[in-house]
Amino acid sequence: MAQVDVEYRDTYAGHVTEQRVGDTVRIAGWVGRRRDHGAIIFIDLRDASGIVQAVIDPASIPDARSLKLEYVVSLRGVVRARPDGTENPDMVTGMVEVAVDELTVLSAAETLPFMLDDRVDVDERTRLEYRYLDLRSPRMAANLRARSAAFRAMREVLDGLGFMDVDTPTLIRSTPEGARDVLVPSRLRKGSFYALPQSPQLFKQLLMVSGVDRYYQIARCYRDEDFRSDRQLEFIQLDLEGAFWGREGVFQTLEAVIGAVVERVRGVPVQTPFRRFTYADVMERYGTDKPDLRFGMEIHDISDLVADSAFGVFASTVAAGGAVKGINSGNVGLSRSALDALTDRARELGAKGLISLAVEETGLRSAVAKFLSDEEQTHIVQAFDAHPGDLILLVADDSKKASVVLGQLRLELGQPRDHEALAFLWVIDFPVFDVNDDGSLSPAHHPFTAPVDVNEMRTSPETAISRSYDLVLNGSELGSGSVRIHDPVVQEQVFDILGIGQEEAERRFGWFVKGLRFGTPPHAGFAVGIDRLLAILQGERSIREVIPFPKTQTGVDPMSGSPTPVDDDQLRELGIALRPEVKAEG
Amino acid sequence: MAQVDVEYRDTYAGHVTEQRVGDTVRIAGWVGRRRDHGAIIFIDLRDASGIVQAVIDPASIPDARSLKLEYVVSLRGVVRARPDGTENPDMVTGMVEVAVDELTVLSAAETLPFMLDDRVDVDERTRLEYRYLDLRSPRMAANLRARSAAFRAMREVLDGLGFMDVDTPTLIRSTPEGARDVLVPSRLRKGSFYALPQSPQLFKQLLMVSGVDRYYQIARCYRDEDFRSDRQLEFIQLDLEGAFWGREGVFQTLEAVIGAVVERVRGVPVQTPFRRFTYADVMERYGTDKPDLRFGMEIHDISDLVADSAFGVFASTVAAGGAVKGINSGNVGLSRSALDALTDRARELGAKGLISLAVEETGLRSAVAKFLSDEEQTHIVQAFDAHPGDLILLVADDSKKASVVLGQLRLELGQPRDHEALAFLWVIDFPVFDVNDDGSLSPAHHPFTAPVDVNEMRTSPETAISRSYDLVLNGSELGSGSVRIHDPVVQEQVFDILGIGQEEAERRFGWFVKGLRFGTPPHAGFAVGIDRLLAILQGERSIREVIPFPKTQTGVDPMSGSPTPVDDDQLRELGIALRPEVKAEG
Repeated sequence: MAQVDVEYRDTYAGHVTEQRVGDTVRIAGWVGRRRDHGAIIFIDLRDASGIVQAVIDPASIPDARSLKLEYVVSLRGVVRARPDGTENPDMVTGMVEVAVDELTVLSAAETLPFMLDDRVDVDERTRLEYRYLDLRSPRMAANLRARSAAFRAMREVLDGLGFMDVDTPTLIRSTPEGARDVLVPSRLRKGSFYALPQSPQLFKQLLMVSGVDRYYQIARCYRDEDFRSDRQLEFIQLDLEGAFWGREGVFQTLEAVIGAVVERVRGVPVQTPFRRFTYADVMERYGTDKPDLRFGMEIHDISDLVADSAFGVFASTVAAGGAVKGINSGNVGLSRSALDALTDRARELGAKGLISLAVEETGLRSAVAKFLSDEEQTHIVQAFDAHPGDLILLVADDSKKASVVLGQLRLELGQPRDHEALAFLWVIDFPVFDVNDDGSLSPAHHPFTAPVDVNEMRTSPETAISRSYDLVLNGSELGSGSVRIHDPVVQEQVFDILGIGQEEAERRFGWFVKGLRFGTPPHAGFAVGIDRLLAILQGERSIREVIPFPKTQTGVDPMSGSPTPVDDDQLRELGIALRPEVKAEG
Repeated sequence: MAQVDVEYRDTYAGHVTEQRVGDTVRIAGWVGRRRDHGAIIFIDLRDASGIVQAVIDPASIPDARSLKLEYVVSLRGVVRARPDGTENPDMVTGMVEVAVDELTVLSAAETLPFMLDDRVDVDERTRLEYRYLDLRSPRMAANLRARSAAFRAMREVLDGLGFMDVDTPTLIRSTPEGARDVLVPSRLRKGSFYALPQSPQLFKQLLMVSGVDRYYQIARCYRDEDFRSDRQLEFIQLDLEGAFWGREGVFQTLEAVIGAVVERVRGVPVQTPFRRFTYADVMERYGTDKPDLRFGMEIHDISDLVADSAFGVFASTVAAGGAVKGINSGNVGLSRSALDALTDRARELGAKGLISLAVEETGLRSAVAKFLSDEEQTHIVQAFDAHPGDLILLVADDSKKASVVLGQLRLELGQPRDHEALAFLWVIDFPVFDVNDDGSLSPAHHPFTAPVDVNEMRTSPETAISRSYDLVLNGSELGSGSVRIHDPVVQEQVFDILGIGQEEAERRFGWFVKGLRFGTPPHAGFAVGIDRLLAILQGERSIREVIPFPKTQTGVDPMSGSPTPVDDDQLRELGIALRPEVKAEG
């Protein structure tokens, strides 16, 4: 803890242990609990370090009678051992109490809108309205500490590796990619706008052009998305870039950074290097590009085993170029109705149906068992390494569809509820393009991502591979990165192949590509979503729990009431006006 | 330096010293200088660590002929001692050269718009347009390194003292104080706006309410000012706040932080504690609240000595309640015309005139000498501790005016041009109100600053003192802070006294004052302008030289061309439109 200020205290509450018995201490903090026994009053005095019990005789200190919950006080007293039988071995300070001889009330407190107790369920809007009280709760205070500790761990590792912390501008040129830019009207150049950065991407690449060797920044970024998912209008990412660098350097560095963060926040070591999977591999085995590897239940393709099956669905699916795949969901003991619900869920996810095979000592029990030969049944059981009691779920469909549906069922059946285990992995060899459901292609990454081969990108766009990579933890994408294009000619070709016309490319990115023309080192980088990482490490479902002052899903801060209307004079200065339809609403 | 990536290099250029003679090294970087001697080509290979000389035989490596300035290459070769007489002891790598046996051109470079040489004067707009090249120059690269080193030193000290790094939101409620807010239209709540923070003030105070003990943040802040002074639309500050904390704790902490920064950036220790002056004292002695203490030349009030002088201007000024003050500008050897110019300058600054007294062995030489008795002359010489050759400058005027004019002349005559010496000081005991020229009062600090006595603030506003303090370096204000108001009742009284009506206070700050009502610890804090500190430490006249990607004084980024017009569709989504007069201009 920090130095203490003698005006109010000379020690922290959490430091008043047996070693201090006999000492006179001065401490300051909040009145946590308060018990008035008439002739004696006990209070739990809480500060940022912990809690200590103080004992006050109201006969000599009448002010003690007026103390209420969350009053802020400074008190002086002698540390003494608690009477036999009243010790609390669960508390660091549980063997002692402070016999108060002087008390100063520094601040009163109104009745709180909710108790600071973790167990009481308060709706989130109320918690956000009184965020300063919410943050006093042990859970939220621990989240704040974890966040600060994570920042520190990241910086210590990167500083130690010779990275430079460079702050890039946040009022930049609007070059929207993916999400909408957050726009900022300029007063000095009316009618023009800055954008808040979606990431420092172009600036960090230009830092490489500038001769910076290794860059990092805990960067504030902005995306004006619809708030359906667990996103915020502003968020922070650990942003990295290096010159004369490639994927292996990025991986080593991030493994060191993440390892240090987990060690600091969780107190446990992380196994490195992280496992690596190609995109093709994870899609095949887990039906998703961000698999949760805390559990197995891999997808297996048994098309070969059932291509000639007497069960027509299998045979015809395989004959038509589809696949029969499945997972062994283990000994889940689903009821008939639970199985029906699972089938409905598979249909909801887009599958034509779901075939379940219960593995018994004597063979498979299933509506389709009678169509499967003994040999087929044996092969299927072997393919899934299944044992009596296990439940095998099969989907016969388009190969990708089957994987995606099974991947989702896998999560719903197998994903642990807690966040105790941490399963990190790298996904590499992403395709350049995502294939949409209608067969059209859309760029899978931002246009500065280097392709493995720009010619392949043009001639075989469906199968071309890019030099990008993702970091995944427990089924969440923590971040992504890539080797960048450092050749301005290749960059222009890639714009063209991605469908960004020459004029558009010049307008949006011309200033950046110009920078590549004066000697650009090969470079690579990454960005880690810090909010998501912390939420997982702290076992929180929403990133809002680990952000000091988040906004609601509609971008509102219930505490300050922002955003708010502003004076028309202010808008006039900016050269803008509200549209008539908006005015009418207001 | 960071780890190197074996794909391109296995060592840094600046690390190739005598110890490596005989080793085969692989290095990568930019072609700095290039000399083609026909049978042999020398290049200076530059990377972030430094420069090493490479020697290439174009007969075996024909590619070397095509190398131009700022090409990016990777090369392999054997380190050998330079031939006798060709060593360069001024370079770390000056005793060796690399005999290249393999060369790869990684990137070509077009002809640069300017040379990277420090001595060539390039206009700033061009430097900003090609900032990525500007940053390759030794001077700018050193500024970037200093900035990163300063961040690191600040964090190491504060982390060590138990401070928590907490990131506060940057899309906040508009509560303009002082400067204009930068506004951000909300898309999800059309017609409403966020503001970018002028500082994290209210959020850091609410962190104290939240139970955070010590907070810091290197915070991005925004002010939409007219760019006359050396300001930027966005800037960063080291922001601090502590609970149960006061001025002494703030001072100790900042002295440790600043000391570490100077040590890291300048390599010299700083004398602490810093000197302290009251506001009244510095105004009296230096005529400014941010005195440059690298030199003396203090202002002395000689009113008492000349109250009865035969020189009517002195006598009448003192009789009218004014003052006669002066500085000893030392042995400046000003010509007659230079003295005249100085008098003009004093008038320009608002003085009625300037009286100069040249100190000679035999007495004072001056147009007014004949009106001064021998005794008066002796007293004046003693008052200024003057010696033959010195020049004393006097102003007879309103007391404050005389100090301000003399303070400015003092700077213009005495201020060192370089930034070698560092003179830090604290200014304390600021008044609550500034007295304007017309006698009206305006708040000297933000309304959360604690007064020493709120009643005095109401009854004697002209003389009431606040609990605020400034940090000054070499005549620049580096930052300011205060003990804050932690009592919501006092806060409301202060709003009232500062002329912020109840309704306005409720509208702008109601949400914040509400937070003070649930148990607020006494707290204090500070903010240091990092850009200004770095500019002074690096000997730069403008903060733009130490900001990685600054904007011009009109808020334009010549590199990316921002700000830019945007589509009307984008504006429609935000519920705003350009005003007709702006459209017409566009």
